[in-house]
Order: sequence, then C-alpha cells, then structure tokens
Amino acid sequence: MGDGNKVIFSGRIVSLLIEEHELPDGRRASFEIVRHSGGAAVLPVMEDGRVILIRQFRPAAGGMVWEIPAGRLEGGEPPETCLHRELREEVGVRAASLERLGEMLTAVGFCDEVVHLFVARGLTEVPRALEPDEYIDVVPMAFDEAMAMLRRGEIPDGKTQLALFLYQQRNVR
Amino acid sequence: MGDGNKVIFSGRIVSLLIEEHELPDGRRASFEIVRHSGGAAVLPVMEDGRVILIRQFRPAAGGMVWEIPAGRLEGGEPPETCLHRELREEVGVRAASLERLGEMLTAVGFCDEVVHLFVARGLTEVPRALEPDEYIDVVPMAFDEAMAMLRRGEIPDGKTQLALFLYQQRNVR
Repeated sequence: MGDGNKVIFSGRIVSLLIEEHELPDGRRASFEIVRHSGGAAVLPVMEDGRVILIRQFRPAAGGMVWEIPAGRLEGGEPPETCLHRELREEVGVRAASLERLGEMLTAVGFCDEVVHLFVARGLTEVPRALEPDEYIDVVPMAFDEAMAMLRRGEIPDGKTQLALFLYQQRNVR
Repeated sequence: MGDGNKVIFSGRIVSLLIEEHELPDGRRASFEIVRHSGGAAVLPVMEDGRVILIRQFRPAAGGMVWEIPAGRLEGGEPPETCLHRELREEVGVRAASLERLGEMLTAVGFCDEVVHLFVARGLTEVPRALEPDEYIDVVPMAFDEAMAMLRRGEIPDGKTQLALFLYQQRNVR
C-alpha cells in the first residue's frame, strides 16, 4: 500500500477505502477497496445424508436467497466459533464436528473478504435465536435435490454452490 | 427499500449505501450495501483441451491471485460483450463461441454483484492490451492440473473454483 490511502467509510460490516498500490512492475495506481473481516459458511449434513439449506431475506439481492448458514468473523475469531454461533442462531442446531471444505475469495476485484467453507455433522437440535435483521427459513433436503437446484440455476449464491461442489468432490474421491 | 437510504460513496467500481429495508415479516432494519454493476468471467478452453488461467495482481488480496479472465459489466452491456473485451485485453485471444455455465452472487450478505460464468472456445490469437492498472500472467494448463490446484487450495478465487466445477459437471454429464 502507498501513502495515498483514504478511508471513505468505516461501518459495522464493511469499510471502503481508496488505496494506492504499486504493481509488480513498479507502476502505481489507485483502487476502490472494500475491506471485510471475513466470513465462514457451513453445509450441515444430517444423519440420514440430507443437507440443510436456508432461505434468507437478503436486501442486497432484493429478496429471498437459497444459501447455507454463514456469518461474519467477529473480532478475529476462528471460523469454527463463528459457525457454531450461526448454526445455533440461524438453524437451531449444535454440530458435533466441523470439517474444512475449502475457502473462497468472494469478490477479489474490489474486496478482501475470504469465506471459509465447512461441513457440519453430528447435529442435535437447540433453541433457535435469529438476530433482529434476519429472516430465515430452514429447509432440509436430499443432497441430490440440492445439486439439481444448483443445475437449474436456483441457487445463485456463490459460496453455497461452491460448498456443494466441494462436498460432492470429497465424497466421490 | 425505504425512505431512509443514504449514499455514502459513488465510485468508478462500487457504490456504498446505508439502506433501510422491510423484512418479509414487516420488521424494518438498516443495512450497509455495496452496489456493483455486475461482472462476467470466462474459462477459455483451447483446441487440445487445455484451459487458460491467469495470475493477476489484486490489491484487495495483497498479491498475485490465480483466476479466470473476468471484467465488470459497463453501461448495461451483456456479459458476452464484456468477455470478448476481457479475452482480448487480458489474454490476447478472440473466441468463436461463448457458452453460459452459470452465475453467482459473489457476496450476498452486503453486495448485489452477480458474476455471469461462461466457457470460451474456438480461440485465436490477437494483440493483447492490458489496462493501466492491470498486471497479468497468462498460463495455459491441463484441466486436470487446474482441478488439482483447486484441491490443493491454490485457487482461492471463488468464481474460478465455481467455473471449473461447473465446466467439469457439464463434461461429465
């Protein structure tokens, strides 16, 4: 980063900066950068092999979106801490195990957010507690049905598509 | 959207707003929303079946990132127009055909960006012309090698992982 950095906004979820960077060949340019603390998302898998998707109201997308449970990493917490919280709040389950599937840079052209992807197993029900700005339906379904929805273009959310593929790849290998 | 919307920043790449939205159950809440015109990304496939990845300097990620060619939709253009431009500028090829693989919401928690994913075939070389803020290496490789890199966690970029899986799924079916 150079000296010409300017904080435009520093919010609860994102910060926006105009940053000056030196390219590998020495040229300099300025960039609009959204900074985010990172996130974690998890595919919950039930005893009988069904997976749990959620339908969540997302203002950015203008309506309800099919997703897997996810949250923002708060105060440098590990993804696992975030995911245990989100599984309890959004789905109403506790997971006996969390296993890493992979990770993704969500929008590397302008944003530093990394989302860590996991699978959760050994689920037991606990009381659910949505946050005030959340509206979420919980929908267990066969894994093949989730993949069929993906193929039909009904799951536009990137992290959800990627988690389903990473889980499928792991189980096929 | 409600009346309580406030434009914090309106830039070349993104805008940032504080928006008030009504949830499906009638509650209201305010959200930090990054608005983006959308993008397109393309997996170029050569005659011999090799695919073309690029290594690109990405300030948001703090270094070089493995990706597929991609760009921002300008002035409401269709994804195909954007991709023909990016293939020429970033890779130095013209594609005889572009075929849709899918699409992804990149970061639906705070951003409305949709990236349209395509595969390009029938490639012929043309002069390459990077933009002033771009630094990009072009790397043709076997598709299996790209998937091995993905499995080893060497391709964190979400749109690139998803395009590789969508292309693989299409060819397996």
